[in-house]
Amino acid sequence: MSTAPRRQVRLNLFAHACGHHAAAWRAPGSSVSRLGEISYWEELARIAERGRLDALFLADGQSIGTAGVERGPAWTLEPITVLTAMARATERIGLVTTVSSTFWDPFHAARLLASLDHISHGRAGINVVTSMTDAEARNHGMPALPDHAKRYATAGEFIEVLQGLWDSWPAQSILADTEGVYVDSSLLRPPRHRGESFEVAGPLNVPTPPQGRPVLFQAGASAPGRELAARHAEGIYAVAWDLESAHAYRSDLRARAAALGRDPETIAVMPGLVAHVAATEEEARRVRADLDSRLPVADSLRQLSFFTGQDTSTWELDAPVPPLPPLEEFTGPKGRYATVLRIVDSVQPTVRELLGLLAAGGGHATVIGTPESVADEIERWVDAGAADGFNLMPPTLPGGITDFVEQVVPVLQRRGRFRREYEGTTLREHLGLPEVRSVNAPRALRA
Amino acid sequence: MSTAPRRQVRLNLFAHACGHHAAAWRAPGSSVSRLGEISYWEELARIAERGRLDALFLADGQSIGTAGVERGPAWTLEPITVLTAMARATERIGLVTTVSSTFWDPFHAARLLASLDHISHGRAGINVVTSMTDAEARNHGMPALPDHAKRYATAGEFIEVLQGLWDSWPAQSILADTEGVYVDSSLLRPPRHRGESFEVAGPLNVPTPPQGRPVLFQAGASAPGRELAARHAEGIYAVAWDLESAHAYRSDLRARAAALGRDPETIAVMPGLVAHVAATEEEARRVRADLDSRLPVADSLRQLSFFTGQDTSTWELDAPVPPLPPLEEFTGPKGRYATVLRIVDSVQPTVRELLGLLAAGGGHATVIGTPESVADEIERWVDAGAADGFNLMPPTLPGGITDFVEQVVPVLQRRGRFRREYEGTTLREHLGLPEVRSVNAPRALRA
Ligand SMILES: Cc1cc2nc3c(=O)[nH]c(=O)nc-3n(C[C@H](O)[C@H](O)[C@H](O)COP(=O)(O)O)c2cc1C
Ligand SMILES: Cc1cc2nc3c(=O)[nH]c(=O)nc-3n(C[C@H](O)[C@H](O)[C@H](O)COP(=O)(O)O)c2cc1C
Repeated sequence: MSTAPRRQVRLNLFAHACGHHAAAWRAPGSSVSRLGEISYWEELARIAERGRLDALFLADGQSIGTAGVERGPAWTLEPITVLTAMARATERIGLVTTVSSTFWDPFHAARLLASLDHISHGRAGINVVTSMTDAEARNHGMPALPDHAKRYATAGEFIEVLQGLWDSWPAQSILADTEGVYVDSSLLRPPRHRGESFEVAGPLNVPTPPQGRPVLFQAGASAPGRELAARHAEGIYAVAWDLESAHAYRSDLRARAAALGRDPETIAVMPGLVAHVAATEEEARRVRADLDSRLPVADSLRQLSFFTGQDTSTWELDAPVPPLPPLEEFTGPKGRYATVLRIVDSVQPTVRELLGLLAAGGGHATVIGTPESVADEIERWVDAGAADGFNLMPPTLPGGITDFVEQVVPVLQRRGRFRREYEGTTLREHLGLPEVRSVNAPRALRA
Repeated sequence: MSTAPRRQVRLNLFAHACGHHAAAWRAPGSSVSRLGEISYWEELARIAERGRLDALFLADGQSIGTAGVERGPAWTLEPITVLTAMARATERIGLVTTVSSTFWDPFHAARLLASLDHISHGRAGINVVTSMTDAEARNHGMPALPDHAKRYATAGEFIEVLQGLWDSWPAQSILADTEGVYVDSSLLRPPRHRGESFEVAGPLNVPTPPQGRPVLFQAGASAPGRELAARHAEGIYAVAWDLESAHAYRSDLRARAAALGRDPETIAVMPGLVAHVAATEEEARRVRADLDSRLPVADSLRQLSFFTGQDTSTWELDAPVPPLPPLEEFTGPKGRYATVLRIVDSVQPTVRELLGLLAAGGGHATVIGTPESVADEIERWVDAGAADGFNLMPPTLPGGITDFVEQVVPVLQRRGRFRREYEGTTLREHLGLPEVRSVNAPRALRA
């Protein structure tokens, strides 16, 4: 291993509310009053770019629940508008939005993403998800969420429609011949898609984006989710509580991709990482304990009910977590539930301990330590083949990302693990992904 | 009339491609290579703000046609992303996007507009249209456009859903009580809408926008279009070839609004205005003639076929326009066709003359002259009660809006017709519109 080239670490900032710890907004001096202010999001973007991160990453959801909004501010402004503003506040960093294929019309989605890619000069990415709750469905004319298999079938079709639309108006068809035509329309390639979930004629009314196609991310842990990722994803936001589960996930995903004829090196697997960094480990633990102490137990229990499908309100706080049904019997989001099972299985926590473990990022990898020990852990995962990098989920924002950028990034840079300057200008280049073939090639050259 | 207060003129910039003249992109030094560059749109926004205009206005369409893209660059990047960037490049000017109620999911539209309103600190507007072509329908899973009546029924419902969603998460429900709840959920007002076209539970996952509700524009000329405008619109983008038709339109609209119990003074009727301005009238005419000379006749004829539903390829160019069927028999977009009828009726042009008249803005009011004579015409329309102001459609961009801002605006300012500085900070304030009632008022106080 010592002679192998040092793998570069990929790092995104998953920007979320006042930070990923459920009690972040309760801490003194939190950003809670700034969530509707675009300057807050732009500030996060600038800090992340200062750290030369690969991308900003925004999640998305299509509803607020009564319990949710009482518990804390989990909302953002609509992510594509936020990323557009972030694009103009930065120069190089990538910009990844989450889009639900269950609720979005693919023509609108393709167009918004193509525009974001033009506006950012090739820095857009799209994280395709299939959504999680019936409350979201009821905001979009459906009585309930379509079933899991149907959602993933739709997601695959959605991605193919997006690709067909991004390819449909090749930039080189624009002749702008002031004595003749503006576009050579023989080069248009309308996808004329007719499928189970979508019928979209095309072409798109925005020419090919600078990256050919915005970078495709995926987040979803079930077998159909992995299969979709193996087929299409260039970046993956994964959940992994420990190195072993991350390794198993990444290996499985790479094997699936290889079986489909893809080079696994063209897929960046980036689990979520909650890092509490301070000059000493004691200080980092103290800060984390302070956040934990601000958690309202009843609300956390309610969220745990959702994650586990159990009525947790009767559970005893200082007793071990009661036996949970196997993964196969769980009908909610399986990835999250698998993590709960894994935590319970590995550390046999009390209910109270489990709540603390889930409170920052809901079961994502968590490190508490000094800049060096956090960098060690990142290297350990990457060297073990458990991750290509991480989707950073700072417990508080902006503090947590400032700390990471100022303290951990320099350690990774000194160790030759992370860029000191951007080399490319596009997200595709930052992630070391191949250029998109087929796009921009005239029809006659494609076959 | 001399003792009446001088009515203030409202002015938007309708930013479109290289300008509204169909041959604008063919002129030397045109902006044709910059359409995909956000810096171009930001520059237009800054010029308009320098002129203290009320708002930027973007149209929208959901398809490109083969003929369309050969004829010229009628495309924009997706307008909400463009306006978001414009919001960050300016401080005060309003930002109005066009949204088709035929193709947009109201939850997504409400959220995007609420975000734009937050990002711009209260400067967002939405122009609700019902779309025009089957090609657009085929990009959104429909074989053809729903019929006119159905589209307008949907549009009315769409607006009500948007309003319900914008009202649904009142900002004052956010307590951010770090010892208690983030939101007092008893103040949430989910619309629980169940209608013919939409079922949307709500609440929206973005709190009440700064304006309460973004300003509602409408563009559509038929009786159902006017009825919709009378009921809901706060601004109207109208087509009027001459003062008489503008006066008839505005009077009809105000009567309809009054009949519905609304104060007509709370509706700004803004016809399109194509102004060719130069130091002398001869110079203005010369510039216009130069643009006209760049029009490819065959393409213009093809577009005329669409506007009239006739096969115009057999028409003789220098003969008078052949008799056209009455408005009632025309099944395409009626507003545009009514204008063609009106032009033919009023000036009995040859086919070639009609093409020239339609080439810049397709039958909108057109003035060619000096800054003073253009300002005279604007005043004449406003004083006659034919308009509250105009949606400026410069024949070329950025040149045409720079000329207008530097030459016509100062004349209007000297005459006490147009602001020298913004007084308010929101679009609602710029347009002198009342604050939105009901929004932000706790449920108990509403009834
Ligand atoms: C790490 C991770 C992140 C996710 N982020 C989102 C999100 O932002 N929005 C969303 O609607 N769903 C999100 N999902 C949900 C998935 O898209 C999917 O709907 C759900 O997990 C069920 O799929 P699965 O069984 O394959 O995990 C996420 C899932 C995972 C595993
Ligand atoms: C002045 C004006 C501007 C319009 N702008 C748009 C537009 O930007 N996008 C669009 O899809 N339809 C636009 N429309 C079309 C209308 O929304 C409507 O679909 C069409 O005109 C038929 O309605 P009508 O018969 O009431 O005019 C516009 C119509 C008018 C009169």
